[in-house]
Amino acid sequence: MTWTFVNTHFFKEGAAVLQTNDLALQRGYGVFDYLRTANNQPLFIDDYLDRFFNSAQQLFITIPYKKEKVKQYIFELIAKNNIPESGIRMLATGGYSPDGYSPVTGNFVLQQQPLQTPDNEKFERGIRIVTYAYQRDFPAVKSTNYLMGVWLQQQLKEQHIDDVLYFHHDIISEFPRANIFIITTDGRLLTPAANILQGITRRKVLELAPEILPVEERDLSIAELKNAAEVFMTSTTRRILPVVEIDGIQIGNGHAGRISTQLYKRFLDLEAEVLRD
Amino acid sequence: MTWTFVNTHFFKEGAAVLQTNDLALQRGYGVFDYLRTANNQPLFIDDYLDRFFNSAQQLFITIPYKKEKVKQYIFELIAKNNIPESGIRMLATGGYSPDGYSPVTGNFVLQQQPLQTPDNEKFERGIRIVTYAYQRDFPAVKSTNYLMGVWLQQQLKEQHIDDVLYFHHDIISEFPRANIFIITTDGRLLTPAANILQGITRRKVLELAPEILPVEERDLSIAELKNAAEVFMTSTTRRILPVVEIDGIQIGNGHAGRISTQLYKRFLDLEAEVLRD
Repeated sequence: MTWTFVNTHFFKEGAAVLQTNDLALQRGYGVFDYLRTANNQPLFIDDYLDRFFNSAQQLFITIPYKKEKVKQYIFELIAKNNIPESGIRMLATGGYSPDGYSPVTGNFVLQQQPLQTPDNEKFERGIRIVTYAYQRDFPAVKSTNYLMGVWLQQQLKEQHIDDVLYFHHDIISEFPRANIFIITTDGRLLTPAANILQGITRRKVLELAPEILPVEERDLSIAELKNAAEVFMTSTTRRILPVVEIDGIQIGNGHAGRISTQLYKRFLDLEAEVLRD
Repeated sequence: MTWTFVNTHFFKEGAAVLQTNDLALQRGYGVFDYLRTANNQPLFIDDYLDRFFNSAQQLFITIPYKKEKVKQYIFELIAKNNIPESGIRMLATGGYSPDGYSPVTGNFVLQQQPLQTPDNEKFERGIRIVTYAYQRDFPAVKSTNYLMGVWLQQQLKEQHIDDVLYFHHDIISEFPRANIFIITTDGRLLTPAANILQGITRRKVLELAPEILPVEERDLSIAELKNAAEVFMTSTTRRILPVVEIDGIQIGNGHAGRISTQLYKRFLDLEAEVLRD
Protein backbone atom coordinates (compact mmCIF):
# COMPACT_ATOMS: atom_id res chain seq x y z
CA MET A 1 0.00 0.00 0.00
CA THR A 2 1.53 3.30 -1.12
CA TRP A 3 0.12 6.59 0.12
CA THR A 4 -0.04 9.80 -1.91
CA PHE A 5 -0.66 13.27 -0.50
CA VAL A 6 -3.16 15.39 -2.46
CA ASN A 7 -3.77 18.99 -1.32
CA THR A 8 -4.75 18.31 2.30
CA HIS A 9 -4.78 14.56 2.97
CA PHE A 10 -3.01 11.26 2.34
CA PHE A 11 -4.83 8.92 -0.04
CA LYS A 12 -4.42 5.23 -0.75
CA GLU A 13 -3.25 3.95 -4.11
CA GLY A 14 -5.93 4.51 -6.76
CA ALA A 15 -7.75 7.11 -4.62
CA ALA A 16 -5.15 9.83 -5.25
CA VAL A 17 -6.89 11.71 -8.06
CA LEU A 18 -7.37 15.12 -9.62
CA GLN A 19 -10.41 16.30 -11.54
CA THR A 20 -10.08 16.14 -15.30
CA ASN A 21 -10.34 19.94 -15.59
CA ASP A 22 -6.98 20.57 -13.92
CA LEU A 23 -4.78 22.85 -15.99
CA ALA A 24 -1.86 20.41 -15.86
CA LEU A 25 -4.04 17.84 -17.63
CA GLN A 26 -5.74 20.27 -20.01
CA ARG A 27 -2.83 22.55 -20.88
CA GLY A 28 0.28 20.85 -19.51
CA TYR A 29 0.61 23.68 -17.01
CA GLY A 30 2.42 22.40 -13.94
CA VAL A 31 5.77 22.23 -12.17
CA PHE A 32 7.32 19.43 -10.20
CA ASP A 33 10.50 18.27 -8.56
CA TYR A 34 11.91 14.91 -7.68
CA LEU A 35 14.19 13.92 -4.84
CA ARG A 36 15.58 10.63 -3.67
CA THR A 37 15.55 8.81 -0.37
CA ALA A 38 18.13 6.33 0.84
CA ASN A 39 17.55 4.37 4.05
CA ASN A 40 14.28 6.31 4.40
CA GLN A 41 16.19 9.61 4.51
CA PRO A 42 15.68 12.30 1.88
CA LEU A 43 18.88 13.47 0.16
CA PHE A 44 19.57 17.19 -0.28
CA ILE A 45 15.92 17.96 0.42
CA ASP A 46 16.43 21.72 0.89
CA ASP A 47 18.01 22.05 -2.56
CA TYR A 48 15.02 20.32 -4.15
CA LEU A 49 12.49 22.37 -2.20
CA ASP A 50 14.21 25.61 -3.23
CA ARG A 51 14.12 24.62 -6.88
CA PHE A 52 10.49 23.46 -6.69
CA PHE A 53 9.34 26.76 -5.17
CA ASN A 54 11.39 28.71 -7.68
CA SER A 55 9.85 26.80 -10.63
CA ALA A 56 6.36 27.50 -9.31
CA GLN A 57 7.10 31.20 -8.88
CA GLN A 58 8.43 31.50 -12.45
CA LEU A 59 5.16 30.08 -13.84
CA PHE A 60 2.82 31.94 -11.43
CA ILE A 61 1.78 28.64 -9.85
CA THR A 62 0.67 28.67 -6.22
CA ILE A 63 2.04 26.10 -3.77
CA PRO A 64 -0.45 26.05 -0.90
CA TYR A 65 2.18 25.50 1.82
CA LYS A 66 5.43 27.04 2.96
CA LYS A 67 8.66 25.08 2.42
CA GLU A 68 8.85 23.88 6.02
CA LYS A 69 5.31 22.50 5.84
CA VAL A 70 6.01 20.70 2.54
CA LYS A 71 9.10 19.21 4.16
CA GLN A 72 7.00 18.02 7.08
CA TYR A 73 4.52 16.30 4.72
CA ILE A 74 7.45 14.66 2.89
CA PHE A 75 8.71 13.22 6.18
CA GLU A 76 5.17 12.01 6.96
CA LEU A 77 4.99 10.37 3.52
CA ILE A 78 8.33 8.63 4.10
CA ALA A 79 7.18 7.37 7.51
CA LYS A 80 3.79 6.14 6.24
CA ASN A 81 5.13 4.38 3.14
CA ASN A 82 8.41 2.94 4.42
CA ILE A 83 10.02 2.61 0.98
CA PRO A 84 13.67 3.05 2.05
CA GLU A 85 15.11 3.52 -1.46
CA SER A 86 12.64 5.75 -3.28
CA GLY A 87 11.89 8.76 -5.43
CA ILE A 88 9.54 11.44 -4.11
CA ARG A 89 7.73 13.64 -6.58
CA MET A 90 6.29 17.04 -5.65
CA LEU A 91 3.77 18.37 -8.16
CA ALA A 92 2.02 21.74 -8.29
CA THR A 93 -0.51 22.40 -11.04
CA GLY A 94 -2.38 25.33 -12.59
CA GLY A 95 -5.52 24.14 -10.80
CA TYR A 96 -9.19 23.80 -11.73
CA SER A 97 -9.32 26.77 -14.07
CA PRO A 98 -12.87 27.92 -14.91
CA ASP A 99 -11.83 29.19 -18.36
CA GLY A 100 -9.50 26.23 -19.00
CA TYR A 101 -6.58 28.57 -19.65
CA SER A 102 -5.78 30.85 -16.70
CA PRO A 103 -3.97 29.44 -13.66
CA VAL A 104 -5.93 29.56 -10.41
CA THR A 105 -5.13 28.16 -6.94
CA GLY A 106 -3.15 25.08 -7.80
CA ASN A 107 -3.41 21.44 -6.82
CA PHE A 108 -0.54 19.98 -4.86
CA VAL A 109 0.60 16.34 -4.89
CA LEU A 110 3.34 14.34 -3.13
CA GLN A 111 3.99 10.86 -4.47
CA GLN A 112 6.53 8.19 -3.60
CA GLN A 113 7.81 5.24 -5.64
CA PRO A 114 10.51 2.61 -5.12
CA LEU A 115 13.67 3.56 -7.00
CA GLN A 116 16.69 1.49 -7.85
CA THR A 117 19.80 3.51 -8.60
CA PRO A 118 22.39 2.16 -11.07
CA ASP A 119 24.86 -0.29 -9.49
CA ASN A 120 28.64 -0.33 -9.96
CA GLU A 121 28.36 -2.69 -12.92
CA LYS A 122 25.98 -0.29 -14.70
CA PHE A 123 28.37 2.54 -13.87
CA GLU A 124 31.33 0.64 -15.36
CA ARG A 125 29.43 -0.23 -18.53
CA GLY A 126 28.17 3.33 -19.09
CA ILE A 127 25.48 4.39 -21.57
CA ARG A 128 25.08 5.05 -25.28
CA ILE A 129 23.48 8.31 -26.36
CA VAL A 130 22.58 10.31 -29.46
CA THR A 131 22.37 14.08 -29.92
CA TYR A 132 19.20 15.88 -31.03
CA ALA A 133 18.51 19.50 -32.03
CA TYR A 134 16.12 20.87 -29.45
CA GLN A 135 15.86 23.56 -26.81
CA ARG A 136 13.39 23.28 -23.93
CA ASP A 137 11.06 26.21 -23.19
CA PHE A 138 11.81 27.76 -19.79
CA PRO A 139 14.98 25.67 -19.31
CA ALA A 140 15.52 26.97 -15.75
CA VAL A 141 12.05 25.76 -14.71
CA LYS A 142 11.22 22.14 -13.94
CA SER A 143 7.87 22.18 -15.71
CA THR A 144 5.88 19.06 -16.51
CA ASN A 145 6.48 19.57 -20.24
CA TYR A 146 8.37 16.48 -21.41
CA LEU A 147 6.55 16.15 -24.71
CA MET A 148 9.77 15.95 -26.74
CA GLY A 149 11.62 13.78 -24.22
CA VAL A 150 8.86 11.18 -23.96
CA TRP A 151 8.30 11.20 -27.72
CA LEU A 152 12.01 10.69 -28.45
CA GLN A 153 12.22 7.88 -25.89
CA GLN A 154 9.93 5.84 -28.13
CA GLN A 155 12.43 6.02 -31.01
CA LEU A 156 15.48 5.43 -28.79
CA LYS A 157 14.12 2.17 -27.41
CA GLU A 158 13.93 0.68 -30.89
CA GLN A 159 17.56 1.61 -31.52
CA HIS A 160 18.78 0.37 -28.10
CA ILE A 161 20.05 3.87 -27.27
CA ASP A 162 19.91 4.88 -23.61
CA ASP A 163 19.34 8.62 -23.80
CA VAL A 164 19.32 11.76 -25.96
CA LEU A 165 21.36 14.92 -25.50
CA TYR A 166 19.82 18.19 -26.71
CA PHE A 167 21.78 20.80 -28.62
CA HIS A 168 20.86 24.08 -30.26
CA HIS A 169 22.99 25.79 -32.95
CA ASP A 170 25.86 23.38 -32.26
CA ILE A 171 25.89 24.12 -28.48
CA ILE A 172 24.97 21.20 -26.23
CA SER A 173 22.67 21.77 -23.27
CA GLU A 174 21.27 18.79 -21.35
CA PHE A 175 19.43 15.48 -21.46
CA PRO A 176 15.65 15.51 -20.96
CA ARG A 177 16.22 14.48 -17.32
CA ALA A 178 19.96 14.88 -16.68
CA ASN A 179 22.93 17.24 -17.04
CA ILE A 180 26.11 16.60 -19.04
CA PHE A 181 29.79 16.92 -18.09
CA ILE A 182 32.90 16.38 -20.17
CA ILE A 183 36.52 15.85 -19.14
CA THR A 184 38.95 17.20 -21.71
CA THR A 185 42.10 15.39 -22.81
CA ASP A 186 44.10 18.02 -20.89
CA GLY A 187 42.20 17.25 -17.68
CA ARG A 188 39.56 19.96 -17.22
CA LEU A 189 35.94 19.36 -16.21
CA LEU A 190 33.48 21.30 -18.39
CA THR A 191 29.69 21.59 -18.24
CA PRO A 192 27.18 23.84 -20.04
CA ALA A 193 26.27 27.00 -18.13
CA ALA A 194 23.20 28.24 -20.04
CA ASN A 195 19.82 26.97 -21.23
CA ILE A 196 19.76 24.09 -18.78
CA LEU A 197 17.98 23.00 -15.65
CA GLN A 198 20.34 23.50 -12.75
CA GLY A 199 20.52 19.92 -11.54
CA ILE A 200 21.10 19.26 -7.85
CA THR A 201 23.54 16.42 -8.59
CA ARG A 202 25.24 18.75 -11.09
CA ARG A 203 25.69 21.31 -8.32
CA LYS A 204 27.13 18.74 -5.92
CA VAL A 205 29.62 17.59 -8.58
CA LEU A 206 30.65 21.20 -9.20
CA GLU A 207 31.27 21.52 -5.46
CA LEU A 208 33.28 18.28 -5.21
CA ALA A 209 35.27 18.46 -8.43
CA PRO A 210 37.72 21.35 -7.76
CA GLU A 211 39.62 19.10 -5.32
CA ILE A 212 40.36 16.80 -8.26
CA LEU A 213 40.59 18.97 -11.41
CA PRO A 214 39.87 22.49 -12.71
CA VAL A 215 36.22 23.22 -13.53
CA GLU A 216 34.57 25.51 -16.09
CA GLU A 217 30.90 26.27 -16.72
CA ARG A 218 30.50 27.55 -20.27
CA ASP A 219 29.04 26.84 -23.73
CA LEU A 220 30.27 23.55 -25.20
CA SER A 221 30.18 22.57 -28.86
CA ILE A 222 29.33 19.14 -30.22
CA ALA A 223 32.94 18.81 -31.41
CA GLU A 224 34.26 19.40 -27.89
CA LEU A 225 31.82 16.78 -26.63
CA LYS A 226 32.91 14.14 -29.12
CA ASN A 227 36.61 14.82 -28.60
CA ALA A 228 36.36 14.53 -24.83
CA ALA A 229 38.47 12.05 -22.86
CA GLU A 230 35.49 11.21 -20.64
CA VAL A 231 31.81 12.18 -20.65
CA PHE A 232 29.21 11.59 -17.96
CA MET A 233 25.68 12.55 -17.06
CA THR A 234 24.42 13.58 -13.63
CA SER A 235 20.88 13.14 -12.34
CA THR A 236 18.98 12.51 -9.15
CA THR A 237 18.04 8.96 -10.10
CA ARG A 238 21.34 8.02 -11.74
CA ARG A 239 23.90 10.03 -9.72
CA ILE A 240 26.90 9.99 -12.12
CA LEU A 241 26.76 7.75 -15.18
CA PRO A 242 29.51 7.52 -17.83
CA VAL A 243 28.60 8.12 -21.48
CA VAL A 244 30.67 5.73 -23.58
CA GLU A 245 29.19 6.28 -27.03
CA ILE A 246 27.75 9.38 -28.74
CA ASP A 247 26.12 9.19 -32.17
CA GLY A 248 27.94 5.90 -32.75
CA ILE A 249 31.36 7.34 -31.78
CA GLN A 250 33.17 5.71 -28.89
CA ILE A 251 34.27 8.04 -26.05
CA GLY A 252 37.56 7.30 -24.29
CA ASN A 253 38.14 3.58 -23.87
CA GLY A 254 34.45 2.70 -24.11
CA HIS A 255 33.81 2.27 -20.42
CA ALA A 256 33.88 4.37 -17.24
CA GLY A 257 36.92 6.68 -17.22
CA ARG A 258 39.37 7.27 -14.40
CA ILE A 259 38.27 10.77 -13.38
CA SER A 260 34.56 9.95 -13.72
CA THR A 261 35.17 7.06 -11.35
CA GLN A 262 36.97 9.32 -8.86
CA LEU A 263 34.08 11.81 -8.93
CA TYR A 264 31.55 9.00 -8.60
CA LYS A 265 33.31 7.70 -5.47
CA ARG A 266 33.42 11.19 -3.98
CA PHE A 267 29.72 11.58 -4.66
CA LEU A 268 28.95 8.25 -2.96
CA ASP A 269 31.03 9.43 0.01
CA LEU A 270 29.06 12.69 0.16
CA GLU A 271 25.80 10.72 0.14
CA ALA A 272 27.08 8.50 2.96
CA GLU A 273 28.09 11.60 4.97
CA VAL A 274 24.68 13.19 4.52
CA LEU A 275 22.98 9.96 5.58
CA ARG A 276 25.20 9.65 8.66
CA ASP A 277 24.41 13.15 9.90
CA MET B 1 -25.24 19.17 -13.44
CA THR B 2 -22.65 18.60 -16.14
CA TRP B 3 -21.58 15.08 -17.08
CA THR B 4 -18.08 14.09 -18.16
CA PHE B 5 -17.14 10.84 -19.87
CA VAL B 6 -14.00 9.13 -18.51
CA ASN B 7 -12.78 5.94 -20.22
CA THR B 8 -15.96 3.87 -19.95
CA HIS B 9 -18.66 5.83 -18.09
CA PHE B 10 -20.28 9.20 -17.60
CA PHE B 11 -19.45 10.89 -14.29
CA LYS B 12 -21.05 13.80 -12.47
CA GLU B 13 -19.21 17.05 -11.89
CA GLY B 14 -16.39 16.59 -9.38
CA ALA B 15 -16.39 12.80 -9.84
CA ALA B 16 -14.68 12.93 -13.23
CA VAL B 17 -11.11 12.27 -12.17
CA LEU B 18 -7.82 10.72 -13.22
CA GLN B 19 -5.18 9.28 -10.91
CA THR B 20 -2.26 11.58 -10.17
CA ASN B 21 0.17 9.24 -11.92
CA ASP B 22 -1.27 9.86 -15.38
CA LEU B 23 1.43 10.81 -17.87
CA ALA B 24 -0.47 13.94 -18.96
CA LEU B 25 -0.21 15.24 -15.39
CA GLN B 26 3.32 14.04 -14.74
CA ARG B 27 4.95 14.75 -18.09
CA GLY B 28 2.45 16.86 -20.03
CA TYR B 29 2.01 13.93 -22.44
CA GLY B 30 -1.46 14.14 -23.95
CA VAL B 31 -3.43 15.21 -27.01
CA PHE B 32 -6.84 16.79 -27.24
CA ASP B 33 -9.27 18.43 -29.59
CA TYR B 34 -12.09 20.87 -29.15
CA LEU B 35 -15.27 21.26 -31.14
CA ARG B 36 -18.28 23.49 -30.79
CA THR B 37 -21.99 22.81 -30.60
CA ALA B 38 -24.75 25.21 -31.67
CA ASN B 39 -28.38 24.35 -30.92
CA ASN B 40 -27.11 21.09 -29.41
CA GLN B 41 -25.56 20.10 -32.74
CA PRO B 42 -21.82 19.52 -33.14
CA LEU B 43 -20.19 21.55 -35.92
CA PHE B 44 -17.79 19.89 -38.38
CA ILE B 45 -17.42 16.94 -36.01
CA ASP B 46 -15.72 14.64 -38.54
CA ASP B 47 -12.96 17.19 -39.16
CA TYR B 48 -12.26 17.40 -35.43
CA LEU B 49 -12.31 13.64 -34.96
CA ASP B 50 -9.87 13.16 -37.83
CA ARG B 51 -7.47 15.69 -36.34
CA PHE B 52 -7.79 14.21 -32.83
CA PHE B 53 -6.98 10.70 -34.04
CA ASN B 54 -4.10 12.01 -36.12
CA SER B 55 -2.61 13.89 -33.14
CA ALA B 56 -2.81 10.75 -31.02
CA GLN B 57 -1.13 8.66 -33.68
CA GLN B 58 1.74 11.15 -34.05
CA LEU B 59 2.49 10.90 -30.32
CA PHE B 60 1.92 7.11 -30.02
CA ILE B 61 -1.10 7.70 -27.77
CA THR B 62 -3.88 5.12 -27.79
CA ILE B 63 -7.51 6.19 -28.13
CA PRO B 64 -9.51 3.24 -26.78
CA TYR B 65 -12.40 3.63 -29.30
CA LYS B 66 -12.87 3.92 -33.02
CA LYS B 67 -13.99 7.28 -34.45
CA GLU B 68 -17.62 6.21 -34.85
CA LYS B 69 -17.79 5.13 -31.21
CA VAL B 70 -16.25 8.42 -29.99
CA LYS B 71 -18.83 10.25 -32.08
CA GLN B 72 -21.58 8.22 -30.47
CA TYR B 73 -20.32 9.13 -26.97
CA ILE B 74 -20.19 12.80 -28.01
CA PHE B 75 -23.84 12.65 -29.06
CA GLU B 76 -24.69 10.96 -25.74
CA LEU B 77 -22.82 13.70 -23.87
CA ILE B 78 -24.75 16.39 -25.76
CA ALA B 79 -28.06 14.68 -25.00
CA LYS B 80 -27.28 14.19 -21.30
CA ASN B 81 -25.96 17.70 -20.67
CA ASN B 82 -28.27 19.80 -22.84
CA ILE B 83 -25.90 22.77 -23.15
CA PRO B 84 -27.00 24.02 -26.59
CA GLU B 85 -24.07 26.42 -27.14
CA SER B 86 -20.99 24.62 -25.91
CA GLY B 87 -17.44 23.47 -26.37
CA ILE B 88 -16.64 19.76 -26.25
CA ARG B 89 -13.15 18.66 -25.36
CA MET B 90 -11.75 15.24 -26.25
CA LEU B 91 -8.62 14.31 -24.31
CA ALA B 92 -6.35 11.27 -24.67
CA THR B 93 -3.41 10.89 -22.30
CA GLY B 94 -0.23 8.85 -21.98
CA GLY B 95 -1.93 6.81 -19.24
CA TYR B 96 -0.88 5.43 -15.87
CA SER B 97 2.73 4.77 -16.77
CA PRO B 98 4.55 2.46 -14.32
CA ASP B 99 7.93 4.12 -14.98
CA GLY B 100 6.43 7.63 -15.12
CA TYR B 101 7.91 8.20 -18.58
CA SER B 102 6.73 5.67 -21.17
CA PRO B 103 3.20 5.96 -22.64
CA VAL B 104 0.91 3.02 -21.91
CA THR B 105 -2.80 2.47 -22.66
CA GLY B 106 -4.14 5.99 -22.40
CA ASN B 107 -6.98 7.56 -20.48
CA PHE B 108 -9.79 9.08 -22.49
CA VAL B 109 -12.01 11.99 -21.46
CA LEU B 110 -14.94 13.87 -23.04
CA GLN B 111 -15.96 17.13 -21.36
CA GLN B 112 -18.52 19.77 -22.20
CA GLN B 113 -18.74 23.42 -21.15
CA PRO B 114 -21.03 26.32 -22.04
CA LEU B 115 -19.40 28.55 -24.64
CA GLN B 116 -20.30 32.03 -25.77
CA THR B 117 -18.95 32.95 -29.18
CA PRO B 118 -18.08 36.60 -29.94
CA ASP B 119 -21.11 38.69 -30.99
CA ASN B 120 -21.25 41.13 -33.91
CA GLU B 121 -20.17 44.02 -31.71
CA LYS B 122 -17.05 42.15 -30.62
CA PHE B 123 -16.42 41.30 -34.29
CA GLU B 124 -16.70 44.99 -35.30
CA ARG B 125 -14.37 46.11 -32.51
CA GLY B 126 -11.69 43.49 -33.26
CA ILE B 127 -8.74 42.61 -31.06
CA ARG B 128 -5.29 43.95 -30.19
CA ILE B 129 -2.33 41.59 -30.37
CA VAL B 130 1.43 41.50 -29.96
CA THR B 131 4.00 39.29 -31.69
CA TYR B 132 6.36 36.95 -29.82
CA ALA B 133 9.33 34.84 -30.96
CA TYR B 134 8.35 31.23 -30.40
CA GLN B 135 7.79 28.00 -32.27
CA ARG B 136 5.65 25.22 -30.83
CA ASP B 137 7.03 21.68 -30.70
CA PHE B 138 5.07 19.32 -32.98
CA PRO B 139 3.06 22.18 -34.54
CA ALA B 140 0.85 19.79 -36.54
CA VAL B 141 -0.21 18.00 -33.36
CA LYS B 142 -2.81 19.35 -30.93
CA SER B 143 -0.89 18.35 -27.81
CA THR B 144 -1.76 19.56 -24.33
CA ASN B 145 1.47 21.57 -24.17
CA TYR B 146 0.38 25.21 -23.76
CA LEU B 147 3.11 26.13 -21.30
CA MET B 148 4.20 29.20 -23.30
CA GLY B 149 0.67 30.26 -24.24
CA VAL B 150 -0.66 30.14 -20.70
CA TRP B 151 2.46 31.83 -19.32
CA LEU B 152 2.26 34.67 -21.86
CA GLN B 153 -1.44 35.15 -21.16
CA GLN B 154 -0.51 36.30 -17.67
CA GLN B 155 1.57 39.16 -19.07
CA LEU B 156 -0.95 40.10 -21.76
CA LYS B 157 -3.75 40.60 -19.26
CA GLU B 158 -1.76 43.26 -17.45
CA GLN B 159 -1.22 45.12 -20.74
CA HIS B 160 -4.85 44.74 -21.91
CA ILE B 161 -3.67 42.85 -25.00
CA ASP B 162 -6.04 40.19 -26.34
CA ASP B 163 -3.66 37.65 -27.82
CA VAL B 164 -0.13 36.87 -28.96
CA LEU B 165 1.04 35.82 -32.42
CA TYR B 166 4.10 33.56 -32.61
CA PHE B 167 6.89 34.09 -35.13
CA HIS B 168 10.21 32.39 -35.75
CA HIS B 169 13.07 33.99 -37.72
CA ASP B 170 10.74 36.77 -38.92
CA ILE B 171 8.12 34.30 -40.26
CA ILE B 172 4.74 34.39 -38.51
CA SER B 173 2.99 31.13 -37.68
CA GLU B 174 -0.07 31.15 -35.43
CA PHE B 175 -1.65 32.20 -32.14
CA PRO B 176 -1.53 29.76 -29.22
CA ARG B 177 -5.14 28.78 -30.02
CA ALA B 178 -5.93 30.32 -33.43
CA ASN B 179 -4.69 30.76 -37.00
CA ILE B 180 -3.85 34.04 -38.73
CA PHE B 181 -4.94 35.44 -42.11
CA ILE B 182 -3.98 38.69 -43.83
CA ILE B 183 -5.59 40.52 -46.71
CA THR B 184 -3.07 42.47 -48.78
CA THR B 185 -3.66 45.99 -50.07
CA ASP B 186 -3.97 44.47 -53.57
CA GLY B 187 -6.74 42.14 -52.42
CA ARG B 188 -5.22 38.70 -51.83
CA LEU B 189 -5.87 36.45 -48.85
CA LEU B 190 -2.68 35.00 -47.36
CA THR B 191 -2.13 32.57 -44.51
CA PRO B 192 0.96 30.69 -43.23
CA ALA B 193 1.35 27.19 -44.65
CA ALA B 194 4.01 25.70 -42.37
CA ASN B 195 4.72 25.18 -38.67
CA ILE B 196 1.08 25.62 -37.67
CA LEU B 197 -1.82 23.60 -36.41
CA GLN B 198 -4.21 23.08 -39.31
CA GLY B 199 -7.27 24.77 -37.84
CA ILE B 200 -10.71 23.52 -38.86
CA THR B 201 -12.07 27.08 -39.12
CA ARG B 202 -8.94 27.96 -41.13
CA ARG B 203 -9.76 25.14 -43.53
CA LYS B 204 -13.38 26.28 -43.91
CA VAL B 205 -12.22 29.84 -44.66
CA LEU B 206 -9.79 28.52 -47.28
CA GLU B 207 -12.72 26.68 -48.88
CA LEU B 208 -15.05 29.70 -48.82
CA ALA B 209 -12.62 32.45 -49.74
CA PRO B 210 -11.83 31.73 -53.41
CA GLU B 211 -15.36 32.92 -54.35
CA ILE B 212 -14.38 36.34 -53.00
CA LEU B 213 -10.62 36.79 -53.57
CA PRO B 214 -7.46 34.89 -54.56
CA VAL B 215 -5.89 32.80 -51.81
CA GLU B 216 -2.28 31.80 -51.07
CA GLU B 217 -0.85 29.56 -48.36
CA ARG B 218 2.83 30.44 -47.84
CA ASP B 219 5.42 31.88 -45.45
CA LEU B 220 4.55 35.41 -44.30
CA SER B 221 6.95 37.92 -42.80
CA ILE B 222 6.20 40.29 -39.94
CA ALA B 223 6.50 43.21 -42.40
CA GLU B 224 3.80 41.71 -44.65
CA LEU B 225 1.62 41.27 -41.57
CA LYS B 226 1.98 44.86 -40.42
CA ASN B 227 1.45 46.28 -43.92
CA ALA B 228 -1.74 44.30 -44.48
CA ALA B 229 -5.03 46.00 -45.34
CA GLU B 230 -6.90 43.63 -43.03
CA VAL B 231 -5.86 40.93 -40.58
CA PHE B 232 -8.02 38.36 -38.82
CA MET B 233 -7.72 35.24 -36.69
CA THR B 234 -9.73 32.06 -37.07
CA SER B 235 -10.56 29.62 -34.29
CA THR B 236 -13.24 27.20 -33.20
CA THR B 237 -14.37 29.37 -30.30
CA ARG B 238 -14.05 32.74 -32.07
CA ARG B 239 -14.86 31.87 -35.70
CA ILE B 240 -13.34 34.90 -37.52
CA LEU B 241 -12.14 37.84 -35.45
CA PRO B 242 -10.49 40.97 -36.91
CA VAL B 243 -7.08 42.02 -35.60
CA VAL B 244 -7.02 45.83 -35.48
CA GLU B 245 -3.72 46.49 -33.72
CA ILE B 246 -0.38 44.65 -33.81
CA ASP B 247 2.52 45.65 -31.54
CA GLY B 248 0.85 49.06 -31.12
CA ILE B 249 0.45 49.61 -34.88
CA GLN B 250 -3.10 50.11 -36.21
CA ILE B 251 -4.19 47.77 -39.01
CA GLY B 252 -6.47 49.19 -41.70
CA ASN B 253 -9.02 51.61 -40.30
CA GLY B 254 -8.81 50.15 -36.77
CA HIS B 255 -11.99 48.09 -36.95
CA ALA B 256 -13.38 45.13 -38.90
CA GLY B 257 -12.45 45.43 -42.59
CA ARG B 258 -14.74 44.96 -45.59
CA ILE B 259 -13.43 41.60 -46.82
CA SER B 260 -13.09 40.16 -43.31
CA THR B 261 -16.76 41.05 -42.83
CA GLN B 262 -17.72 39.34 -46.10
CA LEU B 263 -15.85 36.18 -45.08
CA TYR B 264 -17.40 36.29 -41.62
CA LYS B 265 -20.91 36.43 -43.11
CA ARG B 266 -20.13 33.53 -45.44
CA PHE B 267 -18.85 31.53 -42.50
CA LEU B 268 -22.02 32.23 -40.48
CA ASP B 269 -24.04 31.11 -43.53
CA LEU B 270 -22.03 27.89 -43.71
CA GLU B 271 -22.69 27.24 -40.03
CA ALA B 272 -26.41 27.83 -40.56
CA GLU B 273 -26.40 25.43 -43.52
CA VAL B 274 -24.66 22.71 -41.49
CA LEU B 275 -27.14 23.16 -38.65
CA ARG B 276 -30.12 22.98 -41.03
CA ASP B 277 -28.98 19.69 -42.56
